[in-house]
Amino acid sequence: MEKVRIGVVGLGGRGAYHAELLSTFDDVDVTAVCDLYNDRIENAADRVEKTSGKRPAGYTDYREMFEKEDMDGVLIASSWTTHSRIAVAAMKAGITPATEVGGAASIEECYSVVKTAEETGIEPMFLENCNFGREELALLNMTRMGLFGEIVHCQCGYEHCLRDEITRGNENRHYRFNNYAHRNGDIYPTHGLGPMSKILKINRGNRFVSIVSVASKQTGLNTHAKKHFDKDHPANNLIFTQGDVVNSIIKCAGGETILLTHDTSNFRPYSRAGRLQGTNGIWLEDKNAICLESENAGEVWKPFGEYMDKYDHPIWKKFSRIGLDKYGHGGMDFIVDAAFVDSIKNRNHPAIDVYDWASWIAVTVLSEQSVALGGAPQLFPDFTNGSWLDGTTPKGEGEFCLD
Amino acid sequence: MEKVRIGVVGLGGRGAYHAELLSTFDDVDVTAVCDLYNDRIENAADRVEKTSGKRPAGYTDYREMFEKEDMDGVLIASSWTTHSRIAVAAMKAGITPATEVGGAASIEECYSVVKTAEETGIEPMFLENCNFGREELALLNMTRMGLFGEIVHCQCGYEHCLRDEITRGNENRHYRFNNYAHRNGDIYPTHGLGPMSKILKINRGNRFVSIVSVASKQTGLNTHAKKHFDKDHPANNLIFTQGDVVNSIIKCAGGETILLTHDTSNFRPYSRAGRLQGTNGIWLEDKNAICLESENAGEVWKPFGEYMDKYDHPIWKKFSRIGLDKYGHGGMDFIVDAAFVDSIKNRNHPAIDVYDWASWIAVTVLSEQSVALGGAPQLFPDFTNGSWLDGTTPKGEGEFCLD
Repeated sequence: MEKVRIGVVGLGGRGAYHAELLSTFDDVDVTAVCDLYNDRIENAADRVEKTSGKRPAGYTDYREMFEKEDMDGVLIASSWTTHSRIAVAAMKAGITPATEVGGAASIEECYSVVKTAEETGIEPMFLENCNFGREELALLNMTRMGLFGEIVHCQCGYEHCLRDEITRGNENRHYRFNNYAHRNGDIYPTHGLGPMSKILKINRGNRFVSIVSVASKQTGLNTHAKKHFDKDHPANNLIFTQGDVVNSIIKCAGGETILLTHDTSNFRPYSRAGRLQGTNGIWLEDKNAICLESENAGEVWKPFGEYMDKYDHPIWKKFSRIGLDKYGHGGMDFIVDAAFVDSIKNRNHPAIDVYDWASWIAVTVLSEQSVALGGAPQLFPDFTNGSWLDGTTPKGEGEFCLD
Repeated sequence: MEKVRIGVVGLGGRGAYHAELLSTFDDVDVTAVCDLYNDRIENAADRVEKTSGKRPAGYTDYREMFEKEDMDGVLIASSWTTHSRIAVAAMKAGITPATEVGGAASIEECYSVVKTAEETGIEPMFLENCNFGREELALLNMTRMGLFGEIVHCQCGYEHCLRDEITRGNENRHYRFNNYAHRNGDIYPTHGLGPMSKILKINRGNRFVSIVSVASKQTGLNTHAKKHFDKDHPANNLIFTQGDVVNSIIKCAGGETILLTHDTSNFRPYSRAGRLQGTNGIWLEDKNAICLESENAGEVWKPFGEYMDKYDHPIWKKFSRIGLDKYGHGGMDFIVDAAFVDSIKNRNHPAIDVYDWASWIAVTVLSEQSVALGGAPQLFPDFTNGSWLDGTTPKGEGEFCLD
């Protein structure tokens, strides 16, 4: 396979960016793009043509695209609730899907991707770019080297002041508005949880067992709308249901706990709220610091930067040579797309596979259920049917492997 | 009342320190001290005599002390599980108790102090020194000034590497060993929770409604003991039950959430894990930084020190003039003991009263229950029987008021 033919479904800001990025790859042809809106199709097609010289075909229906186009892979960057159904349709058409991140609306949705992958033999990928962040990769590397000792607790999350984007969602044809208007739970769990899951060997020697979620009141979105928009603005004509801060605690089979925070409705600096803690010490993202007993420096925080320089993951070392800064989100967007292309081109089992995908997005469903039940613990299905325990869950293959 | 006569029960490191500190007060006579161990009685009596010139009477039985001594107040710094029963005995003897911090073993225990206080008319105090820490006081002051906007979420906890003290507990006659050997929950919740409770007006316009708690595995204590002690050391002859990191989420009647962390069994720097978040911004203890929208500086952290200089609480301003640094824990030990003496001498309702006490220590019982039930939510009793809602819960009086 000299060139991998890829289509892109969902051409909002993120999807159009992916289409353009993929069209810069030597081994990729972006052959088709798809969205419900024609202006988005034209915009994405323009950007791909400008970069690669080849204009992709445009579709408003992904089913038609899968039927007519001879594609190897499809990248799905549509609204959260449509990822899985589009991925299932792709697999049934013999096309390898990768989806952008989000959370599931039902456990059945999670099973649909797992079962379709198992039945078709297609190996889809989940495009959690943060798994390829420099810090996250260095922490994975340091954990595997044993520098934290035995891991006991992790924290992570998505803390990002999005109140203006959310409340203006209808103006921007963005699905966030609707999700925040009607749901309540951790509706965007994987930026923090993906990297911690690989650190904890989830689905490969470990698994999520249970989750509790408790939501704070909602006030940030309506407070913002009231202050900035007219009385007849859509955001001023409903009470958003999504709690401002949703905290969840996941218990793992290995006894580790993961504290997960969703915090996007109030003014605050960005953070993924990371903490990694073992018998030998602790790392804190917000402090950008680490303290390890084996360093013999006492209970004193040290800047994490020095540790990254020393313990960069081989994946980061390799790709940082190409100058990752020019790519989105500090380079991790480039790596995650390259990993997807590699999985198709070289038939490598993807770095983040369908079992990771299903168990990570299941967090959203279970979190919503727990919030609705006042914090009652909810149990995770074992999407691997015991493979996590007997060692038979497939591992990532090739240079992008995170297992 | 010219001199307040105070006895001290429980003369380990903390109790002996309180006895000595109180004996330096111009308006206090430390008239009696009590412990199960004679060497501790002699040590505390020596320290009080050295400071004040007067040797207190010594007792091994607090009941005998309450019967024989004509005391106004008693400070209780015994083991966690004995605070309430000693306080109840004191109130029944007409003596005003104040207890050191800890957590309850049963809800009945919490009610026993509330009901005895209501029946006797005695107004006991809970000695949470962290409520008088400089940062905590400044945050209280800033919250009341509205600088955080509407509060939506708090975090707090007790993160302190105590594994050596815990595992050597039997050598040191310390009750921690036994608690960590047999319990599992947030067994020491109030250093973080006390200050956040005053910020959230708990028991006075707000209350704790429910809690979920999830404990990580235990490995820190046994790992430490195995590495440092002989095979026949007590810590190497049992498996400790207390999870290394216990996270709890409390939901308040006002819709706010409090994330509470107990983390004392592994190597790490000290922290009370503070976070205070409202519609106008956020403060983070571990970052020692704050970000407020109204400052018009964007989503950028600023050092918290400048804000403390600007917004120090009146209590801190007043007492910092006397040079608090020479006292324990940055001066807050002095202030909390002075508040207790003031409540007796000037008949002021105490800054931290029996309703605060009962609801704060109830966290331990409910946390243990939730952990035992896999994280199932547990409901808080309303120890005020509705007074929190109708505005009749008594407030602190005098210069130490935190309400």
